[in-house]
Amino acid sequence: MEKIKVAVLGATGSVGQKFIQLLEGHPFFELVELGASERSAGKTYKDAVNWFMETPIPDSVKNLKIKNCRPPFESKIIFSGLDSSVAGEIETEFAHAGYIVVSNSKNHRMDKDVPLIIPEVNPEHLQLIKAQNYNGGAIVTNPNCSTIGMVLALKPLHDRFGISKVNVVTMQALSGAGYPGVSALDLTDNVVPFISGEDEKLEKEPLKILGSFSGDEIKEAEIKISAQTNRVPVIDGHTESVQVELKKKATEKEIIKAWEEFSAEPQELNLPFAPEKPIHYFREEKYPQPRLHRNIDKGMAVSVGRLRPCNIFDYKFTVLSHNTIRGAAGGAILAAELLVKKGFLQ
Amino acid sequence: MEKIKVAVLGATGSVGQKFIQLLEGHPFFELVELGASERSAGKTYKDAVNWFMETPIPDSVKNLKIKNCRPPFESKIIFSGLDSSVAGEIETEFAHAGYIVVSNSKNHRMDKDVPLIIPEVNPEHLQLIKAQNYNGGAIVTNPNCSTIGMVLALKPLHDRFGISKVNVVTMQALSGAGYPGVSALDLTDNVVPFISGEDEKLEKEPLKILGSFSGDEIKEAEIKISAQTNRVPVIDGHTESVQVELKKKATEKEIIKAWEEFSAEPQELNLPFAPEKPIHYFREEKYPQPRLHRNIDKGMAVSVGRLRPCNIFDYKFTVLSHNTIRGAAGGAILAAELLVKKGFLQ
Amino acid sequence: MEKIKVAVLGATGSVGQKFIQLLEGHPFFELVELGASERSAGKTYKDAVNWFMETPIPDSVKNLKIKNCRPPFESKIIFSGLDSSVAGEIETEFAHAGYIVVSNSKNHRMDKDVPLIIPEVNPEHLQLIKAQNYNGGAIVTNPNCSTIGMVLALKPLHDRFGISKVNVVTMQALSGAGYPGVSALDLTDNVVPFISGEDEKLEKEPLKILGSFSGDEIKEAEIKISAQTNRVPVIDGHTESVQVELKKKATEKEIIKAWEEFSAEPQELNLPFAPEKPIHYFREEKYPQPRLHRNIDKGMAVSVGRLRPCNIFDYKFTVLSHNTIRGAAGGAILAAELLVKKGFLQ
Amino acid sequence: MEKIKVAVLGATGSVGQKFIQLLEGHPFFELVELGASERSAGKTYKDAVNWFMETPIPDSVKNLKIKNCRPPFESKIIFSGLDSSVAGEIETEFAHAGYIVVSNSKNHRMDKDVPLIIPEVNPEHLQLIKAQNYNGGAIVTNPNCSTIGMVLALKPLHDRFGISKVNVVTMQALSGAGYPGVSALDLTDNVVPFISGEDEKLEKEPLKILGSFSGDEIKEAEIKISAQTNRVPVIDGHTESVQVELKKKATEKEIIKAWEEFSAEPQELNLPFAPEKPIHYFREEKYPQPRLHRNIDKGMAVSVGRLRPCNIFDYKFTVLSHNTIRGAAGGAILAAELLVKKGFLQ
Repeated sequence: MEKIKVAVLGATGSVGQKFIQLLEGHPFFELVELGASERSAGKTYKDAVNWFMETPIPDSVKNLKIKNCRPPFESKIIFSGLDSSVAGEIETEFAHAGYIVVSNSKNHRMDKDVPLIIPEVNPEHLQLIKAQNYNGGAIVTNPNCSTIGMVLALKPLHDRFGISKVNVVTMQALSGAGYPGVSALDLTDNVVPFISGEDEKLEKEPLKILGSFSGDEIKEAEIKISAQTNRVPVIDGHTESVQVELKKKATEKEIIKAWEEFSAEPQELNLPFAPEKPIHYFREEKYPQPRLHRNIDKGMAVSVGRLRPCNIFDYKFTVLSHNTIRGAAGGAILAAELLVKKGFLQ
Repeated sequence: MEKIKVAVLGATGSVGQKFIQLLEGHPFFELVELGASERSAGKTYKDAVNWFMETPIPDSVKNLKIKNCRPPFESKIIFSGLDSSVAGEIETEFAHAGYIVVSNSKNHRMDKDVPLIIPEVNPEHLQLIKAQNYNGGAIVTNPNCSTIGMVLALKPLHDRFGISKVNVVTMQALSGAGYPGVSALDLTDNVVPFISGEDEKLEKEPLKILGSFSGDEIKEAEIKISAQTNRVPVIDGHTESVQVELKKKATEKEIIKAWEEFSAEPQELNLPFAPEKPIHYFREEKYPQPRLHRNIDKGMAVSVGRLRPCNIFDYKFTVLSHNTIRGAAGGAILAAELLVKKGFLQ
Repeated sequence: MEKIKVAVLGATGSVGQKFIQLLEGHPFFELVELGASERSAGKTYKDAVNWFMETPIPDSVKNLKIKNCRPPFESKIIFSGLDSSVAGEIETEFAHAGYIVVSNSKNHRMDKDVPLIIPEVNPEHLQLIKAQNYNGGAIVTNPNCSTIGMVLALKPLHDRFGISKVNVVTMQALSGAGYPGVSALDLTDNVVPFISGEDEKLEKEPLKILGSFSGDEIKEAEIKISAQTNRVPVIDGHTESVQVELKKKATEKEIIKAWEEFSAEPQELNLPFAPEKPIHYFREEKYPQPRLHRNIDKGMAVSVGRLRPCNIFDYKFTVLSHNTIRGAAGGAILAAELLVKKGFLQ
Repeated sequence: MEKIKVAVLGATGSVGQKFIQLLEGHPFFELVELGASERSAGKTYKDAVNWFMETPIPDSVKNLKIKNCRPPFESKIIFSGLDSSVAGEIETEFAHAGYIVVSNSKNHRMDKDVPLIIPEVNPEHLQLIKAQNYNGGAIVTNPNCSTIGMVLALKPLHDRFGISKVNVVTMQALSGAGYPGVSALDLTDNVVPFISGEDEKLEKEPLKILGSFSGDEIKEAEIKISAQTNRVPVIDGHTESVQVELKKKATEKEIIKAWEEFSAEPQELNLPFAPEKPIHYFREEKYPQPRLHRNIDKGMAVSVGRLRPCNIFDYKFTVLSHNTIRGAAGGAILAAELLVKKGFLQ
């Protein structure tokens, strides 16, 4: 198979850098173009970027000349890590021009005809793009980083037992705020109990993702969700204290079984970025922990632990996932792989 | 008024050190005796202790010779910061010998005849000690550090509106685990979603503290509480994401008013360790934060913020309190001041 | 004595906030005016500032209306916490207009006729301002935060034994970079071995401060200094590993004696911000440490420890000082107090 | 080639865990035996260990039964990560019994007939073991973690220009103290300017390692070294501010060339744990940084940066290396690989 040419928009930002790092040597995709703001356009990537990944800039990317974020591009797939202040319009423009945009930005997530995809959870929602009016182009979106880990953990329970209520309190990593993002003076020896707009995303996005797809539209899941989001001094990995009320009673054993047996289309299709096991359940009561477990299965698996009965809901447990890999660039790449394998690119 | 002689048991431990630091220059109490384990007994305090407070060892304490933790002592009040592995028996022995034990240990907290006191919340529970069979001695206990902040914030709401359910997720400070306590390898760039026995304390102790006192026993409050406790990289100050269901509906304004107007017996009696305002409500959406607000009113006030409606409960908000001052040694000293002023020492 | 009216320029920045916090209730000074950039001018202070001190904004300051940084002001003394991009010109303009400018900015520090003052070290350099051509106005500067702690520790050794070489490696606190300053992604689980321009300041400023004053100019001290500066994940308090070569040999005992006996004009004059003992020597081999000792004597004392012989120089030791109090706003206030007490304001 | 059976002593400790993690799938070695203290002996590894590596316990190790640390063992090579309180005797006993002990403990490092090996620096010192009286057994040691990185960076300079003086100040990682090691209360928002015995190791070990080997003994290098060691809040990676005085003057360009061209026997022999380039020089003035660069070349390369002239010595620069990989278990494995390839096992 010939590699598919792809571009990264917002290439100098933190999500953009992660896209570039993860796309190195990808079996399906060849990164051939970068887009960034006026300020960077025209420069080579290595001169424009303040690279802060732990691996060096891939050699094939170092000297790419940065373009303005406007079509035409020679790529077929456009990964967008654009800031939400500009992502909306630019992504629309690329879709109209016939490109497949896979976006990590929030702008189009809740659009009626735009799928909000977690490949293991709602791959069937990809059909939605057929309803988009983009002359062969399309927009597919990635949920918010705090949503993805939680919904992956909820999915097997929702399938087997039905979920009626979800309560969640997050302890989110610094990298979720981009770079430079949070001041070290704000998050050394401290917790910040507020992340702008984050409670809302975590309360709304899961309803769409877990919604049923009738063939032409998504009917939101009927789940009551309440979220409180906090920032803590952790580099990568969002930790979430979750509680659920189930429609059908289940034992702890049945719940753990649901998680451990969970496998979905990306696993069946053997997609390159699909984790072998999407959910790892830890029996040790002090696990999962972000520093120890965020990188499981190259950062694409979700770790769950501490399942126990709850005095108010049915169960409580802890969920951990890597916010910039599974929760952003890696998740978007997996979605693009799914698009390819399911024939959406023809 | 002549100062009352007091002792600190467990004097070399982290709670013991905090007691010693806070008792320096106290207007009611004179610290004259220290008790610690066999290993330290006989040594001067400065030789036995690995002092790690930010202020120096008080001069009057440096050269006190450490005693074994057995009566007789010349003090009237015995502050106990003993480890729970030994606290139970030793405290009982001192009470039997006629001393007033004010303990920060968990051992006697749930004993039927032992008051579990937050001076602003349930001062009337002190009457319970009259039922104790200790020939003039008594045991009074301080709740768990994560309980105290939360219950102080709940009290005015419970009084005005009635509380039926409480959901809480904590982000607790390192100092709550004592010294050396947690390894720096476990809590640098990390969260640990487990504190042994802590969920349980936070679910049970508030029921006793908010319980009604009929004159001879405490009837536990009928509140459903669910707790999930986490350890985060913060030196001092427990942050808690709390949700409440009220019996009587209330507006946000009424709730904030309840907090801001809250004042109780320690304030009326003008006790030395009583904060001027027990509860500070912050209107800035990014507050309260442990590093900025744990020391408000010398660490004895509780900070609350982020009140907002909840999709599942009635309201959600964030509570912050200093776990080793208000939540341990400072809270115990305030309880002792209350005992003195209400005449329990005669 | 009637209080002297003072202003703070750069009032919304991190040094400005520290000035405001420390000036609250000052016995000599009354803070009556604030200056900041165009963007803030015209607003009340509480509306313009992103306050991040641990104590609340003083009530007397909250509603002060921010001015543009141009004379006339009604104050006599102008404390400048301005950014170095604008400080040079503005400070000159205020001096020309007759004000006494006490600046924490680097711009005028190395000007020939501007004293670079550490009140305990070179109070006689204040005479330099008589040579300034400012019609009664003057500029006095505060050294760099990493310079102040080191030079205070060097001064008694230089006086008694003579210093020929100084080698220093710093581990500097986050607050030295202002707010927001350093990204939390750069300084969580990390060290940054570079601070722009800092090695140079630390190598040059001490030569001027320790220089001799002949009556009309300063002759730089003849000391070879080499500095390497690093940023570490500490909120406040610069720690420095220092080595010295002495002209006259001295024993460890004599050196410690020199530190412990050190006292200077600010102590004699009993200035409000003067620490009782400028230098605290710790005999415990694990001290000094920033979290434990930065606040000694309200953050105005320097802590020293770990004196031991060196294979290359004569001695090595560790110095710690609070970079935003002694090393910035507090040091500048002490210098202003000295100006007042020595009659420079008449 | 058939794999050589190896054992790890001190298998439950932090160095032992790192040995086990790194030996998984090793092309030369098969880990077949584990030794630990009485307390663990007899248990399976997974039951005895508090595993805190970021990857899971290798399946082949999970169920190994832990032995007492006494011969006989069936392995040929014994990797020792024993605590220094017991390492001396146990290692001697294994050597006497005919085993090749490769030790990370300090006990035998300075023994006259024991090579202190950094494979790229002094591979010829391995000949020393021929002088050992162990009936075919031998002891080879790994230097201290803070020594290894520095000496690797010094070696090419010493070879080309000669070094007469070295001055070093370290900022060492938490993992260097083992587990649980340092309390989080000591190293959150803090620096500790003392590591027991560390200054001394860093001043003495390099003299032996860089010493010349005459055929029967090592003549120590004549270099004056002065070291000051500090602990900082970093998980892995020791950062060192180094200064050197050279015998033969060299330009910056020549020095960087010496580093970049450096390659040695492990690279020629293509040893599995040999980094491709032992030294990476960074031209960006803010590099190297522990979080970004400790894992370069699987944690076996040393990063150097910030070379610049010095007012006292000739040059100053920053060195960074991974203290538990290159500085402990990985370095010892590389030494064992060298032993194998150079025929010391026949």
